[in-house]
Amino acid sequence: MSVDELKEKLAYSCNILAIEGHWDQILGHVSARIPGEQAFLMKPHSFGFEEIRPYHVIVCNLEGEKIRGDYERHSEVFIHSEIYKARPDVNCVVHSHPPYAIAFGSLRQPLRPISHEGVIFHDNLPLFDYTTALIRTSELGAKVAECLKNNRGLLMKNHGSTVVGESIEQATLYAIFLEKAARIQLSAMAAGEPTWSSDEEAKLKFEQIYHARRLGNMWDYFVRRAKRASID
Amino acid sequence: MSVDELKEKLAYSCNILAIEGHWDQILGHVSARIPGEQAFLMKPHSFGFEEIRPYHVIVCNLEGEKIRGDYERHSEVFIHSEIYKARPDVNCVVHSHPPYAIAFGSLRQPLRPISHEGVIFHDNLPLFDYTTALIRTSELGAKVAECLKNNRGLLMKNHGSTVVGESIEQATLYAIFLEKAARIQLSAMAAGEPTWSSDEEAKLKFEQIYHARRLGNMWDYFVRRAKRASID
Amino acid sequence: MSVDELKEKLAYSCNILAIEGHWDQILGHVSARIPGEQAFLMKPHSFGFEEIRPYHVIVCNLEGEKIRGDYERHSEVFIHSEIYKARPDVNCVVHSHPPYAIAFGSLRQPLRPISHEGVIFHDNLPLFDYTTALIRTSELGAKVAECLKNNRGLLMKNHGSTVVGESIEQATLYAIFLEKAARIQLSAMAAGEPTWSSDEEAKLKFEQIYHARRLGNMWDYFVRRAKRASID
Amino acid sequence: MSVDELKEKLAYSCNILAIEGHWDQILGHVSARIPGEQAFLMKPHSFGFEEIRPYHVIVCNLEGEKIRGDYERHSEVFIHSEIYKARPDVNCVVHSHPPYAIAFGSLRQPLRPISHEGVIFHDNLPLFDYTTALIRTSELGAKVAECLKNNRGLLMKNHGSTVVGESIEQATLYAIFLEKAARIQLSAMAAGEPTWSSDEEAKLKFEQIYHARRLGNMWDYFVRRAKRASID
Repeated sequence: MSVDELKEKLAYSCNILAIEGHWDQILGHVSARIPGEQAFLMKPHSFGFEEIRPYHVIVCNLEGEKIRGDYERHSEVFIHSEIYKARPDVNCVVHSHPPYAIAFGSLRQPLRPISHEGVIFHDNLPLFDYTTALIRTSELGAKVAECLKNNRGLLMKNHGSTVVGESIEQATLYAIFLEKAARIQLSAMAAGEPTWSSDEEAKLKFEQIYHARRLGNMWDYFVRRAKRASID
Repeated sequence: MSVDELKEKLAYSCNILAIEGHWDQILGHVSARIPGEQAFLMKPHSFGFEEIRPYHVIVCNLEGEKIRGDYERHSEVFIHSEIYKARPDVNCVVHSHPPYAIAFGSLRQPLRPISHEGVIFHDNLPLFDYTTALIRTSELGAKVAECLKNNRGLLMKNHGSTVVGESIEQATLYAIFLEKAARIQLSAMAAGEPTWSSDEEAKLKFEQIYHARRLGNMWDYFVRRAKRASID
Repeated sequence: MSVDELKEKLAYSCNILAIEGHWDQILGHVSARIPGEQAFLMKPHSFGFEEIRPYHVIVCNLEGEKIRGDYERHSEVFIHSEIYKARPDVNCVVHSHPPYAIAFGSLRQPLRPISHEGVIFHDNLPLFDYTTALIRTSELGAKVAECLKNNRGLLMKNHGSTVVGESIEQATLYAIFLEKAARIQLSAMAAGEPTWSSDEEAKLKFEQIYHARRLGNMWDYFVRRAKRASID
Repeated sequence: MSVDELKEKLAYSCNILAIEGHWDQILGHVSARIPGEQAFLMKPHSFGFEEIRPYHVIVCNLEGEKIRGDYERHSEVFIHSEIYKARPDVNCVVHSHPPYAIAFGSLRQPLRPISHEGVIFHDNLPLFDYTTALIRTSELGAKVAECLKNNRGLLMKNHGSTVVGESIEQATLYAIFLEKAARIQLSAMAAGEPTWSSDEEAKLKFEQIYHARRLGNMWDYFVRRAKRASID
């Protein structure tokens, strides 16, 4: 995939996140590793997710420095750079502040497979609480990556969530589904005592629903939907 | 009613469900029995409910095989095929993942007639928990049909809901009303201890409100509303 | 005010209610007494609140019979006719199914002046529970009127709310504010133990905020807002 | 900054508040001190926040009297005039009725830094409960100012919130963030027992996120967003 194609996909990721629960004014960022380079594409500061177009996208290196692009780098670039260093399998990182995931993370409870979406993160959603402040150094970024381990994402206590994937599609969709799972679990917990899928069924459901071909169908759908909601 | 008319109605059912609480990206499906055939119409995979138009609709037989149509079959076709086998009175099946019904189902509590809508399912809303995974075989579909018995619908634990009806109109409206009833009960339970209609009054209310002529008026209204919200 | 002007105002009342929390597909109705006649204007059946235009409005007499108009009468006309008989000061009745008021009514708790809006109904919001079924006879309508007494409205358990006023403006606005008060109280009760204004302050606030001139300003605003949201 | 520029900014503040959680029909008001004058600009009565344009803005003096402008003064002008007298550092006052802040204020609980936004008001959000009625005299306005002390805002029990700032930008954004913090805390409290940032981290986060340059970026974004949502 060319860098131009990646930029377009990254812009759609932002546009999709804006309308699927991850809007937080100009905050939150998505990045994508550039194949064959020690660098990654990233959403710049000062724009809302819905405003991002391919020409906004900047390029940063694994030290977290901006090396190309017209717009300002988010100060939390180190979440991305350190995860790319620690996780060669990861090609996209979504960091955002979805409100239900934040409320849920403050409860220090495990995310349960109460709905389909919960199976993605069942038993593998660490809670990062080394700090609740911004991740503005490579040292703190490394702490996030260490907490993430081999998981698909983590909650950052009193801050937000970070979700990773092999592709922009995967990380974007998993981020959306994490917020939905948190929303459903919160509403169940507010009303009573929820029950959930067994570990075995959760594993089976994950394989049934969230494999590559289906994620491709879902991504295509969300792109169509984002185009219909476009601010242009 | 001709197959073309049924296809149009089925497309409206999908469009209506998309804006009345049953949206879940490309997931969820509606089917309608073809009169005089051992086959049924069905929403295909890979499209959102709001995107469905009559030409998308596919045809499946009672073994769950696609026999006509250009688009991909949902793997859970067996929910539909087995219900049609077991319930000759059913001509439409709506399977979807409405978030409040999912949260509510995880609580293993009876749905109560707290609002008008609750009377539709009072004392006849089984909770299917044989599996919380996908229904991808005729055996599992038969288990769903067995749990459904003669009722108007069921909750599928940690999965969603399935609602049936004599007509597309009836099943679609009942599905909408199930989600609304779950939403209202959850909000009442979060704040305190709700009370509800007696069994006798619930029965009376069901007869007063949800008879065929009124469902026709309601359906016509929802079609007008879906047309106004159309993505075209 | 001419009957034509009243019809226009009644149509706006419906349009406003549709977007301020009282939407329930084709259910719910508003009526307005015709000055100098033993009759009243009323929203007809089969239309959503947002669809009503002056030509839809029908005329019923105090026996609940339709005496003019092209469209179908709601079967619960007796809520209106009996209140008009019992309450000469009332010129408008709003009956609807706002979801938070229904959830709240099921809890059998007093509505508290937690927000401004709560002061309108503090200590004067009866809970009608003689039946939770439809009000389809003059006898049942009389029971509602009896429960209402001299108050501004009541909750109908497991059904909805009925709010009255000297004018269409007043009843419509009070109905909107009742639902908002219920929504805020439910969210406070879900999270903890709310406190509220003293009786003395609630009385003072009611006089400060909800007097005739201010209701006029509010009504004018809601009409502008409804026009902007018009489906035409 | 010229008075015309201030009027434009004040109109945008109103438009932004309308779509970011502070809508309450025609209620709520924003004011801005006129540099070098004993007077301030203020949103007039009878309009919704989204309707305000620069020509609506009126001018009041520190006695709370309207001295210029075509439209009616809000009776609670004294919240503004007395804060301007007591707090020379304050150049903008936002008073409104955001529903989550009202529900939250009724619980008499401290606002916690559960999300980023909470750090703005951690340990400095007084609860004004001298009265829950309107602030219609300079004496009551002085009580509000006294309760506010040197803080960034306060909750007014069973009424709303008042947030202040050095600039229109700052007060507007802080008002939005207060409501968001209350919403997230309420949802966490409804589901369990939230935890939050330490005082030290809350202080650090405030310095990291909410400094002048970032508030400028956020404001510019919200202006673009309000323009896209404009009713014109």
